[in-house]
Amino acid sequence: MRAVIVEAGAVVVRERPDPVPGTGELLVRVQAAGLNGADLLQRAGLYPAPPGSPADIPGLEFAGVVAAVGPGVERFVVGDRVMAVVGGGAQAELAIVHERTALAVPDTLASVEAGGFPEAFTVAHDTLFTQCALRPGERVLVNGAAGGVGIAGAQLALVAGAAVVASVRAAHLRKALEAFGATAVDPADAAAHGPYDVILEPIGAPNLKTDLDSLAIGGRLAIIGIGAGARGEIDLLQLMSRRACIHGSTLRARPLEEKAVAARLVERQVLPLVAAQRVRVPVEEVFGLKDVDAAYTRFAVGGKLGKIVLDIPG
Amino acid sequence: MRAVIVEAGAVVVRERPDPVPGTGELLVRVQAAGLNGADLLQRAGLYPAPPGSPADIPGLEFAGVVAAVGPGVERFVVGDRVMAVVGGGAQAELAIVHERTALAVPDTLASVEAGGFPEAFTVAHDTLFTQCALRPGERVLVNGAAGGVGIAGAQLALVAGAAVVASVRAAHLRKALEAFGATAVDPADAAAHGPYDVILEPIGAPNLKTDLDSLAIGGRLAIIGIGAGARGEIDLLQLMSRRACIHGSTLRARPLEEKAVAARLVERQVLPLVAAQRVRVPVEEVFGLKDVDAAYTRFAVGGKLGKIVLDIPG
Repeated sequence: MRAVIVEAGAVVVRERPDPVPGTGELLVRVQAAGLNGADLLQRAGLYPAPPGSPADIPGLEFAGVVAAVGPGVERFVVGDRVMAVVGGGAQAELAIVHERTALAVPDTLASVEAGGFPEAFTVAHDTLFTQCALRPGERVLVNGAAGGVGIAGAQLALVAGAAVVASVRAAHLRKALEAFGATAVDPADAAAHGPYDVILEPIGAPNLKTDLDSLAIGGRLAIIGIGAGARGEIDLLQLMSRRACIHGSTLRARPLEEKAVAARLVERQVLPLVAAQRVRVPVEEVFGLKDVDAAYTRFAVGGKLGKIVLDIPG
Repeated sequence: MRAVIVEAGAVVVRERPDPVPGTGELLVRVQAAGLNGADLLQRAGLYPAPPGSPADIPGLEFAGVVAAVGPGVERFVVGDRVMAVVGGGAQAELAIVHERTALAVPDTLASVEAGGFPEAFTVAHDTLFTQCALRPGERVLVNGAAGGVGIAGAQLALVAGAAVVASVRAAHLRKALEAFGATAVDPADAAAHGPYDVILEPIGAPNLKTDLDSLAIGGRLAIIGIGAGARGEIDLLQLMSRRACIHGSTLRARPLEEKAVAARLVERQVLPLVAAQRVRVPVEEVFGLKDVDAAYTRFAVGGKLGKIVLDIPG
């Protein structure tokens, strides 16, 4: 198979042996694989793949068709359309995933959309509902709202009956966020629209003070990314008097069973919304496998609405 | 009635008009009132009483006997022994409490013990179970473990099947903590006994880095006091990779309904343990009302095991 390989700080396409599915695993002919911030970190040598994932093939999510199944597989058969979050190795013509973490692709979702769905929607769902226990009527601030997780989070919070303020620096992207039903604002104006019961923070330390200042009593701040910095000062008295909570999490480092639980929740609680077209998966741009370097460059530039996806025809 | 009054940064005893119970309220002849860190802050003018509490009479907890009831009271009658957390005003011969936040005093508890029970055990129970969802088999670090909340937290965590490491600076207090079943250590050695699923932090910012370094995957750090400092730096990447959470809370600022919920949980889940003598309320020293200044001084010195309580014979 051909695969994207991280080599000396760059991404290139190389031939690799076809992987073989083990017990409970699917071999998937990948049709599309979304890019994520972690890919850029891995390219820079900063975010090694967890044990059990290919060490030098990046990619945290894909969609494709089951090409073979390992012993004991119960949930899928050859030919099924599937999509999944994986610890790595998604950006290749073939990939392995445990069937307990794979999701059936709804008919309403094209392959490039499905390739950009799993990571963003799983992180957004896990953060808003499993960690932050979002309730209808609450106020949510989604920072970096035009990114994959941002768009997913804004839509899921809206469907769940929350009021959503979506902050994004690029003014030209705000109209699209308003179309989802969010109030789209410049990051500098986000605090003025608070206080917030839940804040989704994918950017990191530079937003920490404003986030904490904007939390309501009983508010929950969820840190899901630190691309702009990891270290920041907090005021514990403020945290106490707000009776607030700061959550941190990543999906990638979790053990198989926790990823499977998160995937099952997405299957039950998000896929029906996708099938009913109540949430969408915006894709900003699609690149072929041979243009992977250009895809990474486009991803890094920012100012995009939704996902950058590699199209990998089998 | 006589009451402790905060006057120009000092505490003195003055005559005040007897309070009158409103709808749903009890008038309690106070027998004992525990001291808390908040009292020192209030004496220093730093922690004003919440609306509805006497502005200049300190005291967050008391035990006594119901002397009169307001309209609509259903849970108690004159003569009942009760104890409660209040927003202020406990350090007086008479105090008012809403019946929904009052607890019956178990026969096993002497008045001075009951006067030092409500705040520490309510905070410890709320923090360990309601906020941090402590489970049996988990590892708990209790810092400041010889204080009222610390001793309450260590005992409740032990009863709940957790393994407890209790850190306390004063070496002579460690034997008593070991007697409860905890592993008592110097604060400098606490990290070496980790990682911890739950950390109870009543001291504040100086412990923040060590606390975060000592958290297990999925760990919860609960900030319940900031006597040694409120501002500290955190590493959001560390919080993410640990999938950890920082909770802040205070009891005093909560609305009546939330205090009542917390009190009901203590009634159902802690009072049976008190009645069965599975948890105790250590009292370091008892002072008469006229010696209130000495009581505050003793409280501020530290190095004590458990509560400082004012004995207020009616």
